[in-house]
Amino acid sequence: LQVKLADSYGFCFGVKRAINIAQDSPNSTILGSLIHNTREINRLKDNFNIDTVSNINEIQENSSIIIRTHGIPKQDLEYLNNKNIKITDATCPYVKKPQKICEEMEKEGYQVIIFGDIKHPEVKGIKSYVEEPIVVISKEELYNVKLKDKVAIVSQTTKDIRDFTKVVDYLLTNTQELRVFNTICNATFDNQSAAKKLAKEVDIMIIIGGKNSSNTKQLLEISRELCDDSYLVEDCKDLDKEWFRGKEVCGVTAGASTPDWVIEEIIDKIKKI
Amino acid sequence: LQVKLADSYGFCFGVKRAINIAQDSPNSTILGSLIHNTREINRLKDNFNIDTVSNINEIQENSSIIIRTHGIPKQDLEYLNNKNIKITDATCPYVKKPQKICEEMEKEGYQVIIFGDIKHPEVKGIKSYVEEPIVVISKEELYNVKLKDKVAIVSQTTKDIRDFTKVVDYLLTNTQELRVFNTICNATFDNQSAAKKLAKEVDIMIIIGGKNSSNTKQLLEISRELCDDSYLVEDCKDLDKEWFRGKEVCGVTAGASTPDWVIEEIIDKIKKI
Repeated sequence: LQVKLADSYGFCFGVKRAINIAQDSPNSTILGSLIHNTREINRLKDNFNIDTVSNINEIQENSSIIIRTHGIPKQDLEYLNNKNIKITDATCPYVKKPQKICEEMEKEGYQVIIFGDIKHPEVKGIKSYVEEPIVVISKEELYNVKLKDKVAIVSQTTKDIRDFTKVVDYLLTNTQELRVFNTICNATFDNQSAAKKLAKEVDIMIIIGGKNSSNTKQLLEISRELCDDSYLVEDCKDLDKEWFRGKEVCGVTAGASTPDWVIEEIIDKIKKI
Repeated sequence: LQVKLADSYGFCFGVKRAINIAQDSPNSTILGSLIHNTREINRLKDNFNIDTVSNINEIQENSSIIIRTHGIPKQDLEYLNNKNIKITDATCPYVKKPQKICEEMEKEGYQVIIFGDIKHPEVKGIKSYVEEPIVVISKEELYNVKLKDKVAIVSQTTKDIRDFTKVVDYLLTNTQELRVFNTICNATFDNQSAAKKLAKEVDIMIIIGGKNSSNTKQLLEISRELCDDSYLVEDCKDLDKEWFRGKEVCGVTAGASTPDWVIEEIIDKIKKI
C-alpha cells in the first residue's frame, strides 16, 4: 500500500510557530487554549510543563506567559506588562497585521470596520486597537451604521473571502473612499484544495482529526465527493483493516488542529496494515 | 392640463457649469463637442461666438480655449500652455477627482487601475496622469495583468456601480491592499429614478431628447413600463394634440443632453394644448 500525504494538511503556519515558541519557553503559562486538541495540550504540559489558564486574573505575578496565535486585547497586554510578567508573544503574524492596520487607519482618519465574529478572541484583540471599532458579520449589520466618507476594512483571518466580498460591495456603494485590506489567511482553504486534489488520485482517503472538529468534517465531505472510501479517524484504534482490502494508494490529510506526531503515528500504522 | 417636471432631468451639474463657463468666455473655442446637442452648440456659436474644434492642432496661438467637462490629457494641457493659449477649464470637478487620485496613488506606490472605456475622452484624460495606467472594462481583462500587492482603482464617472463592483471583487481576492475610490457620478441614475417616480403619478409622460440619444431612449423605456402613454419628442413640432385628449396630469423629463430652454419651449407648448 502506497501512502500519499496531501500537499497541505494539519496545523497552519501560525499554530506550528506558536508550538515551537511554546516548546522554547518551558515552565510558562498559555492564556487560553493554544489549540483545540487535548492530546497536544497534554504533551506540552507533560514535556514542557506548560499550563493553560482561561482567565487573565489567574496569572501569577513574575510568571512567564505565552500569548497564543489569536492575540489578546491591547488592554490585557498593558495589564500583563504592569504586573511584571514575562511575555512571550506567539500571536500569529497574520493576526498582528490587521491589529496594526486598524490602529494606523483610525489615526489617518478612516472609519474602521472589522469583518468577523465579535465574540472571537482574534476579533476581540483586533478591535482593541481601535477607539471606535465597528464589527460586522454581514452587510445587513451595516444598514444602520452612519458611514463616513473614508472607510477602511479588515477581516478576521479565518473568514471566507466570498462573505467578506459582500460586505465590501455594500461599503463600496456607500462610501467615497474605501481601503480594503485582505487579511484573510488561506490556510484552511489550502488544506481543502489539497484534499480535493489528492482524493481524485487515490483509492482510499484517511482524514485525521477530531470527530467534532468542523474543519475536519469539511475535509471529509470534500473528500467523499471524489473518493467513496473516505474515513475520518481520531487515532490509530479507529483504523479498520477491512477498509484497505484491495486498495493500492491511500491518501492522508488532517484537520487544522491535528499535530504532526499524531499524523505520523497513524501513517505508520497504515503502512503496517 | 397640469404639467409636472421630474425632480431630476436634463443636464447634469457638470454640463450646466460648463455652459455657464462658456457663456462667461465669449469668443472662445471649445476643444471637442461640449454636448451632444446641435441646437445648443449653435446657440453658443450665434450668441457667444463660441466655436468648436475637434483637434488640438487646429487651435490658433494666442486664442482662448475652453476645456469641456471630459477634461483633456495632461500632455495636451502642457501643449496648450506652451502655445501661449488662454485656457478656461470647464472640466467637471467629478472628473478632476479621479485624475488627482490616480496621480497621487501612483506616487504613493500603488498600481493604478482605471475602470472605464479606454477610448472615452474622460478616460484618456484620467490615464494621462499615471505613468503605467491599466484601463479595464471588465474583470476578465485583469486575468493576464500581474497585480501588485497594493492596488488603487477609480472609475469613469458615467459607469454603472454594479459593473465596477465586479472588477473590485476580483481585485479584492487577488491583492493584499486595495484602495477603492468610488468616483461614479449618479447624475444619469438620478434622472432615471426621478422618471420612474413621476411616471407613476401622471396620465401621460413626455420625454424630451434626441431620438438617437441612448440615455433618452432609456428614460422612455423606464417611463413606458409605468405609464403607457409615454412619448419621446425632440422639439415642439413632435407634439401631437391627440395624445393629451382626456388627460389631466402630464409628466415631463429630459435626456442628459437637453438644454433647459428647449424643455421650457416644449412645456409652454404643452400648456397651450
